[in-house]
Amino acid sequence: MKLLRFNGGRVGLVVDGTVRDVTEAAGVDPAQWPPIGMVQLIASFAERREQLERAARGAPPLRPEDVHFDTPVPWPNKLIAIPVNYHAHALEMSSPAISKNGGFFVKSASSLSGASDPVLLPDLPGRAVHHEAELAIVIGRRARHVSREEALDCVFGYACLLDMTVRGKQERAIRKSYDTFTPVGPWITTADEVPDPSALRVQLWVNDELRQDAYTRDMIVDVPEIVSMCASVVTLEPGDVIATGTAEGVGPVVPGDVVTIDITPGVGRMAVRVEQGRGGWNIAIPRSV
Amino acid sequence: MKLLRFNGGRVGLVVDGTVRDVTEAAGVDPAQWPPIGMVQLIASFAERREQLERAARGAPPLRPEDVHFDTPVPWPNKLIAIPVNYHAHALEMSSPAISKNGGFFVKSASSLSGASDPVLLPDLPGRAVHHEAELAIVIGRRARHVSREEALDCVFGYACLLDMTVRGKQERAIRKSYDTFTPVGPWITTADEVPDPSALRVQLWVNDELRQDAYTRDMIVDVPEIVSMCASVVTLEPGDVIATGTAEGVGPVVPGDVVTIDITPGVGRMAVRVEQGRGGWNIAIPRSV
Repeated sequence: MKLLRFNGGRVGLVVDGTVRDVTEAAGVDPAQWPPIGMVQLIASFAERREQLERAARGAPPLRPEDVHFDTPVPWPNKLIAIPVNYHAHALEMSSPAISKNGGFFVKSASSLSGASDPVLLPDLPGRAVHHEAELAIVIGRRARHVSREEALDCVFGYACLLDMTVRGKQERAIRKSYDTFTPVGPWITTADEVPDPSALRVQLWVNDELRQDAYTRDMIVDVPEIVSMCASVVTLEPGDVIATGTAEGVGPVVPGDVVTIDITPGVGRMAVRVEQGRGGWNIAIPRSV
Repeated sequence: MKLLRFNGGRVGLVVDGTVRDVTEAAGVDPAQWPPIGMVQLIASFAERREQLERAARGAPPLRPEDVHFDTPVPWPNKLIAIPVNYHAHALEMSSPAISKNGGFFVKSASSLSGASDPVLLPDLPGRAVHHEAELAIVIGRRARHVSREEALDCVFGYACLLDMTVRGKQERAIRKSYDTFTPVGPWITTADEVPDPSALRVQLWVNDELRQDAYTRDMIVDVPEIVSMCASVVTLEPGDVIATGTAEGVGPVVPGDVVTIDITPGVGRMAVRVEQGRGGWNIAIPRSV
C-alpha cells in the first residue's frame, strides 16, 4: 500500500498507479494545526486499513497534474538520521568507520518537505550544498528496547529521502536543518511491500547524470540494527522518520537542477527541483566563506 | 504568568505560589494523543490569557503534594540546543570558541521530561553522565528570518532545563537524547516577567553541593542572537524549545542524587531525582567502556 499526503494535507492511496483521495476515511482534517493527522493515522492504521482500501477503490483517480505531493509526516515526534553509513562514502568524506561508532543525530522536523516542493538553497555564496540519497524508515508503533529480531515489526513503511547538506565545519544538525532540506516521498510504501529492506537499490540523478547508485546491503549498520540502536536510546513513536544514511557519490546542486531519487523495487521515485532561497547566514555560518 | 502541565497533561497556572487547574479554560484535552494541546495553547495564548487568569483566580489552590509536574511542551516541532555557549565551559571541555562557529544541534523531543520525573541513567558501567544547567527558551509564534532586534518578540517564555549528557566520542545528539535526558520546568514563566534574559543567574546543585553558578550575561551567543540564528535556518513554531547552552562546572551524577536547578530572578527552581534505568547500549555505544 502506498500512503501519501497531498494538496495541503489531504490523505491519499495509490491504486493502479494513480492517487485516490481517502481523506474522509482516514479521519484526517487537513486544516488541523499542528498537522498530526498522519501520526494518528499511522498509530491506528491496522484498524483503518480495510476502510481505507475500500474508500480508495470507490474514489476516482486523480490526474497527476492535480496532485501536489506534501511531506508524508509533517510533525513527527522526531526526525533521526544516521551519519556516514556506507564504507565508500566514509572514504570519500575522509571519515572511515565513523558510523560504527557514531550513533545518530537529529534533524529539525521543520526541514521536512514533499516531493512536489522545491529545495530552497540558502543564500551562501561559495558554500556547497550536497545531495544525499537515503532510504527513510517510518516507524509504526511505540517502541523502546527492541532487539534486531523484533525491529522490523516496528516499521510502518519506507520512503525516498534527500538529506540536503551545507558543507562546512559547523554542527551537522544546523547544516542539515534548513527548511526544505529533508524532502520525503512521494509516498510511504508500507512494510508488507518491502519484505527485505537490505535488498533495495538507491539511485540518484542530478538532471540526467547518475550520481549515486548504491545497494542497501552495503549499509554499515543495517535497517534492523538502526531501529534497535535508536530504540535503545529513545522511545520511538508512530510516524517517526529515520534517515538511514547515504552512499558514495554525494555532490553539489545549484538552482535549476532537478534531483531524482529512485528506490527499487517498489519504494518510489521522486524528482525535486532546486531553487535559490533567501537568507540563511548567521553568527555561526557567515554569508561568504 | 507561570504556565505548567501537571498530573498527566492537565494545564495549570501558579497564583500566589500555588498551582490552580485551568485545563478547561485552556481548551486542552489531557487524553489527546499526540499531546499537542500546549503547542496549540501557546499559539493562541494572547486570546486566551484573560480567560485563563479568570479561571485561575476562581480555582482552589492545589496542595504541593498533589501536583506532579509534567514537561511543559511534550511534543514540540523541535528541541534545539546550543553547544558550548560560555567561555569557561569551552575551556573545561577543551573546545575553545566552538560555539561561535558551532551553530546548534537538535535533541530528540522524546528526551523531554518534567520536574517531577526522575532522570533515568542508562546502564553503561564506566560511562559518566553529566548534568548541564541551562536556560530554556520557549517560542511563542511562527518565525523565520528575524533580526536580533525582533527576536525577543518571538519568545513566549523561559524555563529551567537540564541537558543530561553521556560523555563520549559519539554524536552529541545520541548521547543527549536518552529518554528523561531533558527535564524542563517546573513551569514556563512568560516573557513579560523576564524583561532581560541576559540578567539571569543559573545555579545548579547536586544534593547540597553547588556545582554550577553562572550569569546569562556571560553567554557567547546571547538569547536574541540565538533566536535570530535559529530562525535564519528553520521556521520556528510556537512551543519550540531551545536550550541555550551550559556554563562551567558540569560533572557526573549517580543514582540517588538530587539535581536542583534555580534560575533567578523569577524563572523557577526544580529538583530532579536521578535513578538507575535499564539498557541503553547499542552498536555505537558499547555497554562497557
